[in-house]
Amino acid sequence: MKHYNLIIKNGIVVTTEGMYKCDIAVKDEKIVEMGLNIEGEADKTVDASGMLVLPGAMDVHTHLQMPFGGTVSADSYLSGTRAAACGGVTTLFDYPVQRAGGTIMDLINSKKEILEKDACIDWASHCCITNLNDGAILKEMEKAVEEGITSFKCFLVYKKENMMVDDGTLARLLLRARELGALVNIHAENPDLIDMYTEQFLKEGKTGAWYHYLSRPEFVEAEADRRAVHWAKHLNGPLYVVHMADKEGLEACIQAKREGAEVYIETCPQYLEFTCDVYKREDGRNFVCSPPMKGQESQDALWQAIKADLIDTVATDHCPFQSYEKDWGKDDFTKIPNGCAGVENLYPYMLDAANKGKITFSQAVALCSTNPAKIFGCSQKGELRVGKDADIVIYDKNKDFTVSVKNMHSDYDHTIWEGKKFHGYPVQTYLRGNLVYDNGEFTGKPGMGKFVKRVPKK
Amino acid sequence: MKHYNLIIKNGIVVTTEGMYKCDIAVKDEKIVEMGLNIEGEADKTVDASGMLVLPGAMDVHTHLQMPFGGTVSADSYLSGTRAAACGGVTTLFDYPVQRAGGTIMDLINSKKEILEKDACIDWASHCCITNLNDGAILKEMEKAVEEGITSFKCFLVYKKENMMVDDGTLARLLLRARELGALVNIHAENPDLIDMYTEQFLKEGKTGAWYHYLSRPEFVEAEADRRAVHWAKHLNGPLYVVHMADKEGLEACIQAKREGAEVYIETCPQYLEFTCDVYKREDGRNFVCSPPMKGQESQDALWQAIKADLIDTVATDHCPFQSYEKDWGKDDFTKIPNGCAGVENLYPYMLDAANKGKITFSQAVALCSTNPAKIFGCSQKGELRVGKDADIVIYDKNKDFTVSVKNMHSDYDHTIWEGKKFHGYPVQTYLRGNLVYDNGEFTGKPGMGKFVKRVPKK
Amino acid sequence: MKHYNLIIKNGIVVTTEGMYKCDIAVKDEKIVEMGLNIEGEADKTVDASGMLVLPGAMDVHTHLQMPFGGTVSADSYLSGTRAAACGGVTTLFDYPVQRAGGTIMDLINSKKEILEKDACIDWASHCCITNLNDGAILKEMEKAVEEGITSFKCFLVYKKENMMVDDGTLARLLLRARELGALVNIHAENPDLIDMYTEQFLKEGKTGAWYHYLSRPEFVEAEADRRAVHWAKHLNGPLYVVHMADKEGLEACIQAKREGAEVYIETCPQYLEFTCDVYKREDGRNFVCSPPMKGQESQDALWQAIKADLIDTVATDHCPFQSYEKDWGKDDFTKIPNGCAGVENLYPYMLDAANKGKITFSQAVALCSTNPAKIFGCSQKGELRVGKDADIVIYDKNKDFTVSVKNMHSDYDHTIWEGKKFHGYPVQTYLRGNLVYDNGEFTGKPGMGKFVKRVPKK
Amino acid sequence: MKHYNLIIKNGIVVTTEGMYKCDIAVKDEKIVEMGLNIEGEADKTVDASGMLVLPGAMDVHTHLQMPFGGTVSADSYLSGTRAAACGGVTTLFDYPVQRAGGTIMDLINSKKEILEKDACIDWASHCCITNLNDGAILKEMEKAVEEGITSFKCFLVYKKENMMVDDGTLARLLLRARELGALVNIHAENPDLIDMYTEQFLKEGKTGAWYHYLSRPEFVEAEADRRAVHWAKHLNGPLYVVHMADKEGLEACIQAKREGAEVYIETCPQYLEFTCDVYKREDGRNFVCSPPMKGQESQDALWQAIKADLIDTVATDHCPFQSYEKDWGKDDFTKIPNGCAGVENLYPYMLDAANKGKITFSQAVALCSTNPAKIFGCSQKGELRVGKDADIVIYDKNKDFTVSVKNMHSDYDHTIWEGKKFHGYPVQTYLRGNLVYDNGEFTGKPGMGKFVKRVPKK
Repeated sequence: MKHYNLIIKNGIVVTTEGMYKCDIAVKDEKIVEMGLNIEGEADKTVDASGMLVLPGAMDVHTHLQMPFGGTVSADSYLSGTRAAACGGVTTLFDYPVQRAGGTIMDLINSKKEILEKDACIDWASHCCITNLNDGAILKEMEKAVEEGITSFKCFLVYKKENMMVDDGTLARLLLRARELGALVNIHAENPDLIDMYTEQFLKEGKTGAWYHYLSRPEFVEAEADRRAVHWAKHLNGPLYVVHMADKEGLEACIQAKREGAEVYIETCPQYLEFTCDVYKREDGRNFVCSPPMKGQESQDALWQAIKADLIDTVATDHCPFQSYEKDWGKDDFTKIPNGCAGVENLYPYMLDAANKGKITFSQAVALCSTNPAKIFGCSQKGELRVGKDADIVIYDKNKDFTVSVKNMHSDYDHTIWEGKKFHGYPVQTYLRGNLVYDNGEFTGKPGMGKFVKRVPKK
Repeated sequence: MKHYNLIIKNGIVVTTEGMYKCDIAVKDEKIVEMGLNIEGEADKTVDASGMLVLPGAMDVHTHLQMPFGGTVSADSYLSGTRAAACGGVTTLFDYPVQRAGGTIMDLINSKKEILEKDACIDWASHCCITNLNDGAILKEMEKAVEEGITSFKCFLVYKKENMMVDDGTLARLLLRARELGALVNIHAENPDLIDMYTEQFLKEGKTGAWYHYLSRPEFVEAEADRRAVHWAKHLNGPLYVVHMADKEGLEACIQAKREGAEVYIETCPQYLEFTCDVYKREDGRNFVCSPPMKGQESQDALWQAIKADLIDTVATDHCPFQSYEKDWGKDDFTKIPNGCAGVENLYPYMLDAANKGKITFSQAVALCSTNPAKIFGCSQKGELRVGKDADIVIYDKNKDFTVSVKNMHSDYDHTIWEGKKFHGYPVQTYLRGNLVYDNGEFTGKPGMGKFVKRVPKK
Repeated sequence: MKHYNLIIKNGIVVTTEGMYKCDIAVKDEKIVEMGLNIEGEADKTVDASGMLVLPGAMDVHTHLQMPFGGTVSADSYLSGTRAAACGGVTTLFDYPVQRAGGTIMDLINSKKEILEKDACIDWASHCCITNLNDGAILKEMEKAVEEGITSFKCFLVYKKENMMVDDGTLARLLLRARELGALVNIHAENPDLIDMYTEQFLKEGKTGAWYHYLSRPEFVEAEADRRAVHWAKHLNGPLYVVHMADKEGLEACIQAKREGAEVYIETCPQYLEFTCDVYKREDGRNFVCSPPMKGQESQDALWQAIKADLIDTVATDHCPFQSYEKDWGKDDFTKIPNGCAGVENLYPYMLDAANKGKITFSQAVALCSTNPAKIFGCSQKGELRVGKDADIVIYDKNKDFTVSVKNMHSDYDHTIWEGKKFHGYPVQTYLRGNLVYDNGEFTGKPGMGKFVKRVPKK
Repeated sequence: MKHYNLIIKNGIVVTTEGMYKCDIAVKDEKIVEMGLNIEGEADKTVDASGMLVLPGAMDVHTHLQMPFGGTVSADSYLSGTRAAACGGVTTLFDYPVQRAGGTIMDLINSKKEILEKDACIDWASHCCITNLNDGAILKEMEKAVEEGITSFKCFLVYKKENMMVDDGTLARLLLRARELGALVNIHAENPDLIDMYTEQFLKEGKTGAWYHYLSRPEFVEAEADRRAVHWAKHLNGPLYVVHMADKEGLEACIQAKREGAEVYIETCPQYLEFTCDVYKREDGRNFVCSPPMKGQESQDALWQAIKADLIDTVATDHCPFQSYEKDWGKDDFTKIPNGCAGVENLYPYMLDAANKGKITFSQAVALCSTNPAKIFGCSQKGELRVGKDADIVIYDKNKDFTVSVKNMHSDYDHTIWEGKKFHGYPVQTYLRGNLVYDNGEFTGKPGMGKFVKRVPKK
């Protein structure tokens, strides 16, 4: 008789194509069998009757213990990946930032060292490029891709912070990425207009969080989106637009896709849930992130695109700061560290939308797991099927859950999601067959997470 | 130890998301298990090493033994379904035509009687509606949907033949289909312009097959496409456009999708392979079908849309006629019976495109099997996964095959595909676990095919 | 010393390019001189200090004493042209309707006979074609064009009334008009959808004027617009869309223009002033015309297009009925004769918009005079410049005027414009140098009007 | 009897609305009368029988004696305006360049000093802004507008040359121009991509003129066009795009117009006549200008837009260099001074197109005279009508003319127009009633030209 490490029985498996009853058997961290009635010995058998069985989520956009805005983001690699596990995320992508003079691999390796010790779930790194070091970086990219680092990010903003790249650098990266089967991620906002408005507002004594939004409104994001897809289309370079938040930019990206450009679109739960109106609140500064939440029309456009399968991924841009840090900007919005929490809320949020009929469960799985795995070359992730890593979430459609900073597993002291009610919630998370989350408790261990070596496109 | 009817071992399973090594076990006509190494007794074990293992194709557009153009299409239900099996098709949709005074269910049942006797593969029926019988048909549609007939076709052409419906009838059907979770299929061409050109050409003595094309050029198809999606969009009715052949109409449909309309697009292998230039050939009449093949620009647009996942299905519009019948129109293109062969070539053609890298195998499977099954409510078809019917095609990527009327399994005496070379070819077809095609030979039996009772949306 | 019949001194002349101070001298019904200070003898000298001097308006869309809806429109050729003169209109186009078996020239000549006797201003005729008489009409069009009848109208609606033409007839007319340098005017609405909704509403007891609107909503007009410009574009035929009232159709026409189609767009004051909300009023039936007034979004789009010079002409579709006739449809909207008054309000309405800064006076002149004259081949009309007919309106920007059935010069007993206040109003109208309107009084005579023989495009 | 300075009799006057026979009488440099048969004494009477009588052209884009590319453009203010007069241009706009630290008025006045002495025709200045001097320029713009300088140019290119402005500066200028009723002109190309390609080509030894084109291809211009109209649209700022040369950028501008943005489009004869193929010629360097000529598709799009009245103006970007200067770049395209001749060819070129039926004479007049006068606030220019400056060109439709450096009136030693044949040519040019060009001879005098004080919008 066969021996398995884990059998999950009687659940409803969700794929991008639909839902069906099926047992799952796991051995050596992989799914080895799926069947109508799997028999055999198992170290552990879970009865998932009445439950949905989902692939673990990929949060492909996080910033853990990242130096930014004069401080460091509030979640460490340990607490961030722990929280992720408790939200059904089994793979997380970090965004370390290369600086002038620095190499990709030194940077990645320095982070690897920490992550191998601290990571509670599997992890990968995009690498933010801020300076080509006279072309040396373009050369090193080949090595990086061999090492499984297949995506590189550019900021089209943060000019004063010396993180912005100009269009020539973006173009060179797009051309190089095409050669290597890699991908260029971009943060799209226009710094000049932001600076113009910021200067004007500060001069006029307009210092509240609302002016954070007004200094980077819809069209200021849209311009950079438009420009980036223009280059992607004409240079035939592969582009991934992170945290899309505005309607006009979204439509430009969708149009470019239709015209044959290789363009992928990511949005975040905060843009789907909140509008710029939050910046009018007393605690508006806590919602400050870049790009800011936009108007209702943009939010509607994002949901419409999600329903029509025109957005590829949802990820969090998780980058929380503590209240006292956010307070630095009480009287000057430019002093608020930019970023919000989210890694533990991603999957529950999107699955709640599915449970309420706004999208299908298949769409939630595609957006949070299958698509990101495919786009970023995680060949062993993203689906529940034979041969894949046994990254599995068991989801109870009937469990009600209200988010509170108290029931989250991060290190931050507040969250924009406070009070959010979900109908349906993950009850267990398995990382390669190992239970890392069980009904409210983190049951994994730091160091369990492994580096995900990614595969370039051809 | 478990007992199975069939195990297919060591093959590479293809899904819409990718390809992976996996064994498949079948019992009672269903896939009951998939695993890395399935053990157990089996009535039959097939070693598919080096082979692709695919879901059987759905040809959702055929016309078998159909009265048309003064004769009857050359393939009977028997020969047509036999040929289908030999091309990897395991489910075929017929298009019986309701006439003024006639009911849907009488028509369907009359065909059912024959098909239950003759069908070599599973089958379903769309029902062509030509007359609402003062609204009685709208009423009867509810019953039809309950019986698993969930799609209804309109001709926007064939005015003189009394098959055309006006826009009011189309609108009523769209509204009714929306209520019932059904779908309206349309054949989109404008009869008035066709008549205008035809009259003119005949008067001018322009009678060759080339004038068949010139009498129904791109924009004459495009107008009807545009009109149909306009109604679909504004009435919020579900529309499926059959045999899309022109660029402008295609773009109108894609645009309507983007704007939230429920519009599906089907094209056919003949539009992907041939252009209107075939009508200049000596034997141009053999290629006469409606809509006719279009110019290169349209063909390019179709392929581009396929690559970008903007077309939903590929089906054949299989409707062959014998050479002597085609010859009726030697001196007058209006006398050529409209229609060509294709049911046995559909899957080989699309898989050949995948094998050559034009599209992916996942796309071929989506277009020919997964998408049509989902769109038309065939819940037990369209994918290789636990619980589905064991409709399986084993495909040899290295087998070369040249189409000839001699190696086809239909009753026609010529084919537009004569001489077409495929790299890669199906070697076995299983219908619900039963071998119906084996390396060139039909191994099934008439009557094996079952009616596919379809499920409406919600 | 020179002798003139009329000198208008010190006025501000308005052209499509701007406004400037200039005297105008008229002799033998023509403008013979324009200058900074014209001297010479004159039968009459008018001091237009502080006044605008405008070319007389062309109302290119009226229906006078037209049999329709079981009665005859309330304005005769005499009263209609009299009212026109009093509103600054110096040329009016009628729309006689050809019927199966009838010829163009018989029809035109029968109207000519009356008009030569009754017309108070110059006049031309479009000819509505409802039946090609097996092609005889296409032939006769050449003769008609020679006689100065250079525009032909099609109804894409009024199917039951046997006035509709099918797409084949429209296509033939477009092709023929192209050959002859003529123009095809269309009334664009889809009859099948109107019938569907009408049948449904009557069955449901929904009989108020509001259901007139709901039976022919925006998208029902838009479909026919789309279809017509599709043919115009692909057949390269010259098309003039009358009484454009909806946004989507408008945009389709503008798009076709951009793509090089010869498409002209006319709208009417009633669509610029009222929305479908009028049909909810007690006296909603008095506003019933076809197409009906549409929603605010369509009205906004029409104004935006006017401001951007994307609409070519404004005309009235003047077709009034008496109150007792409108009352026929009190309990059944299908029994309301379709049509409203407007010929006397056109120029005051558009000039009021200019006076209030919504558009420029140059735009008002272009829309109501210069453009229609050019589009319809009235070479001697449409501008104040040397050599043209001395059709002149003197306009007082400071005169306030409130429309009332009592101060209008038609024969109808009510008007949709009742109570409308204008700031600025015409004080004099000259028809070829003859004063036909003077400060509230009609000063012309029946029979003064002459037939305008129009010139085809090359 | 009246006394005039000049009467032009029996000519055909061309306006934007058409052509008509009319005499013109001039007194004190203005048109004072137009009539069918003007009588009166005149210092000079010209019989223009069989001739067209046109308003003098405005060349709103020239660079005279401008320091650029390490030298100075070959035409002085004297020779450039002399040549202009001989080509039917009666007003010319110069583009002096402000530099960091410099004021607008000092610059303008320094040029004024020279022009008052040297200018042979009327002239105005746009002012190129390269540095806001910490906002001082924004303030000074009010004064400049009062002085009749109502248009300001930005370079979105020439980054290394310190002439480029960033998006923040462009945005500030657009907002300021809106306040003042002024206009922002832009040169749209993306410098980063140009630098990227240039660096690459030089490294690869690709140094011919062809690589000038390849280093700034269509999409590199289009990006900057897109960006500029994006700001114009969203900031509601008035934008004038100079020397449009590519299809995609053109379409973006046209689209922005349609969406209500105040955007004007200028193109140049060289883009209408030549394609990038000229850079493959032996003497390709002589055609080097920026932006470079583009492919056939772009040229076709420009002509199509001109025919559809979607382009507002045609001007020359006249900036010739001598052969020996062009030769500097024989072995390195980056060393070729950028710019070509054109001021004397503008009107003949566009009128030749009209004479051949490609456009109408009215369109030629609109593009070269009426539109630029209106857009740039030259209230006394741009039309032949009473009250305007008597800037008049007499044009012989039957005169054949072949361009040669020998029959041009500039100081350059070669021209890209060498050998160009025109059917129809100007025979006389009058500047405010004074004959400055007569059948091949310049008959004016330096210093005759006056500064055109322009009027802001509202």
